[in-house]
Amino acid sequence: MVKVIGASKLLTCNEECRIITRGGVAFEYNHIIGVGDYDALCQEFGQGQFFESSILMPALINAHTHLEFSEQGFEYGSFGNWLDSVMAKRDEKVGVGMLQSIQALLKSGVGSIGAISSYGMDKEILADSALNVVYFCELIGTNEAKCDEIWDSFHQRVKESLTLQNERFKVGIGIHSPYSVMPTLLKKAVQEAKACNMPMSVHFLESREEKEWLQQSNGYFKNFYARINPAVQKSFYSPLGFLNYFEDLQQGVLFVHCTQAQDEHLQKIAQCHGSIVTCPRSNRLLGGNLLQYDWVRGFVPVLVATDSLASNTSLSLLEELRVLLFANSAPLAPLADELLLSVTRRAAKALGLNNGILEVGRDADISLFEIQDIEQSCKESLQWLLYAQEVQRMWLGGEEIF
Amino acid sequence: MVKVIGASKLLTCNEECRIITRGGVAFEYNHIIGVGDYDALCQEFGQGQFFESSILMPALINAHTHLEFSEQGFEYGSFGNWLDSVMAKRDEKVGVGMLQSIQALLKSGVGSIGAISSYGMDKEILADSALNVVYFCELIGTNEAKCDEIWDSFHQRVKESLTLQNERFKVGIGIHSPYSVMPTLLKKAVQEAKACNMPMSVHFLESREEKEWLQQSNGYFKNFYARINPAVQKSFYSPLGFLNYFEDLQQGVLFVHCTQAQDEHLQKIAQCHGSIVTCPRSNRLLGGNLLQYDWVRGFVPVLVATDSLASNTSLSLLEELRVLLFANSAPLAPLADELLLSVTRRAAKALGLNNGILEVGRDADISLFEIQDIEQSCKESLQWLLYAQEVQRMWLGGEEIF
Repeated sequence: MVKVIGASKLLTCNEECRIITRGGVAFEYNHIIGVGDYDALCQEFGQGQFFESSILMPALINAHTHLEFSEQGFEYGSFGNWLDSVMAKRDEKVGVGMLQSIQALLKSGVGSIGAISSYGMDKEILADSALNVVYFCELIGTNEAKCDEIWDSFHQRVKESLTLQNERFKVGIGIHSPYSVMPTLLKKAVQEAKACNMPMSVHFLESREEKEWLQQSNGYFKNFYARINPAVQKSFYSPLGFLNYFEDLQQGVLFVHCTQAQDEHLQKIAQCHGSIVTCPRSNRLLGGNLLQYDWVRGFVPVLVATDSLASNTSLSLLEELRVLLFANSAPLAPLADELLLSVTRRAAKALGLNNGILEVGRDADISLFEIQDIEQSCKESLQWLLYAQEVQRMWLGGEEIF
Repeated sequence: MVKVIGASKLLTCNEECRIITRGGVAFEYNHIIGVGDYDALCQEFGQGQFFESSILMPALINAHTHLEFSEQGFEYGSFGNWLDSVMAKRDEKVGVGMLQSIQALLKSGVGSIGAISSYGMDKEILADSALNVVYFCELIGTNEAKCDEIWDSFHQRVKESLTLQNERFKVGIGIHSPYSVMPTLLKKAVQEAKACNMPMSVHFLESREEKEWLQQSNGYFKNFYARINPAVQKSFYSPLGFLNYFEDLQQGVLFVHCTQAQDEHLQKIAQCHGSIVTCPRSNRLLGGNLLQYDWVRGFVPVLVATDSLASNTSLSLLEELRVLLFANSAPLAPLADELLLSVTRRAAKALGLNNGILEVGRDADISLFEIQDIEQSCKESLQWLLYAQEVQRMWLGGEEIF
């Protein structure tokens, strides 16, 4: 059965960023079969449902979060203190509150996520949810003596996750970071991703502490490893040496954070056809700086995401985008257009999803936001970004969620 | 009758920024008569009311807003476009929604405001409200031929406002800006403020457009005056020339915005014992940049305020402070401490109010925020600033508001 919905404004987020006044979208089962003038669509496909003072857009994509870390209460202000508090408290906090997080994501208009899973505790709940999920099984390990054991355990998680794989739950590989994944493991993981054409997500240059370790094998991580694994006496990689592992992957890798990256790193990421995911509130809370958005997007596509509640005050992607809008000094309305793309078309491309654009053939993942006086606005993205608090209606895979 | 209230943490905001665990405050009528350990206060003054997982602090002070402009719907992205849209739409929008604005201010924990009044439409509603108000009657005028008429009309507004003056409604003088108040009027206003010891608030160097006009008599305002008052062919003042008028005032002037100020202007403001009020979201929306907070506070005290809904998305002082917290790169917890002072002790001093600190003899203007796990925190301001959405309880002049 075909469903037609319409609103005062429809933001396609396609290559031309086409905006349709009194626009509509028609979808059948889970796919979009028509986008254009609402009245014309009704004539073609039958009576629809129109929403005044509202915007239709692709459901948003939050490319980086950790559902298993849905509890707050860690230490903010420095990366080292934060990591220490995570190590100390994770056993009591991990896995708690995952359903509430899914609900919070959906309410902020998010239809797809890139989920980093450290333990595999979140796979069923995510596979059963309305969300479209790219599920990155995360690899971590620095103990050479236990290399096979770590790999087998990781691979077991991947296999179990693959049993749930379907059109809306896709398995990928997450690399914890250059400071915490030894080369033997990294090499195997990249080979696996290549062989199975799986997407990859990698934390990279998130903190000054990480940079100091990668470049000088010194600082916070020197003490960290003296405590937890004294065999690790120096960094496994230089920043560029680490990036070299990700050449020749068919699907570009998501490099998350990169707040400490320099030109040469961004150039390398661009050569690998990678994207950068920025999580501004998380970066700030962990004692870092915000990514210099305007500088970075000169090199590579940038996505915006919330990270998890272990390093953020909420999972609202809308609030996250607003922080960047206000903290940046780029011209206001063009930046709002740009930020919208960073959580729709561009994020879909980076994650290999068939949504993020309202056009024929795409998944029917659609969000509707009520925005007062949007009829009179010619700066629709800005108006949306300034005033949207939560989604009013949402359709995911053609199913009405709210 | 003495009332005693207590909470998990009490932030005095005094000179030592003393924080009292399980602290309390005792007040009689409208004044604080005791601050200290909650149990000890109960022993001295009788049974009180204790709030777990909560913070007590001085009610916040929003030093700059315009209640008459409580309607949204103006043009964002450039100061010139915004001002044009205000001129075009103000007649339909002015004076609408004032009660809702007062409620929004109170709900964000604000107990005192600096209110700029352009028309005098807001004086009764403010005088009748629970808010503690410094009411700046605003002067504007560039037509030399009508100078006396403008002054008389302004002075009439001041006189009418003074009939409402009491302990919690204090009349001051607002200067619209250097580009819109001619020297004859400015001189009289400053004399009046001196003679009556009235506080003053002045918009200053808010936009690139204003700076270009003051420094070169060119740009947007050249066209602006060609349209609305062709007699004005050049700026009345240079930036420093304008500031010279404010020397020798007993009470330091509030200079609002100053996003385009340079060292020499800040030095001059410091010489005049002035303060700077920054309204970050307003500045960003009107096409400007945020004030470089860390640089400016090296010169003068900085307060944080929301401005009005004509140039902001909400009147929440909490949201306003969070924008600065996330946009800034100064160390996180010390910045949160600093931001709290910018809306309590420091703002009270700049506005000449007897609140903003929880100490004996101050007005009993007190806000209470519920903050989960605040008992375990030693970064109380940060925890508050990250999580507070609205005030749970508030006492103003000793009266319970919520």
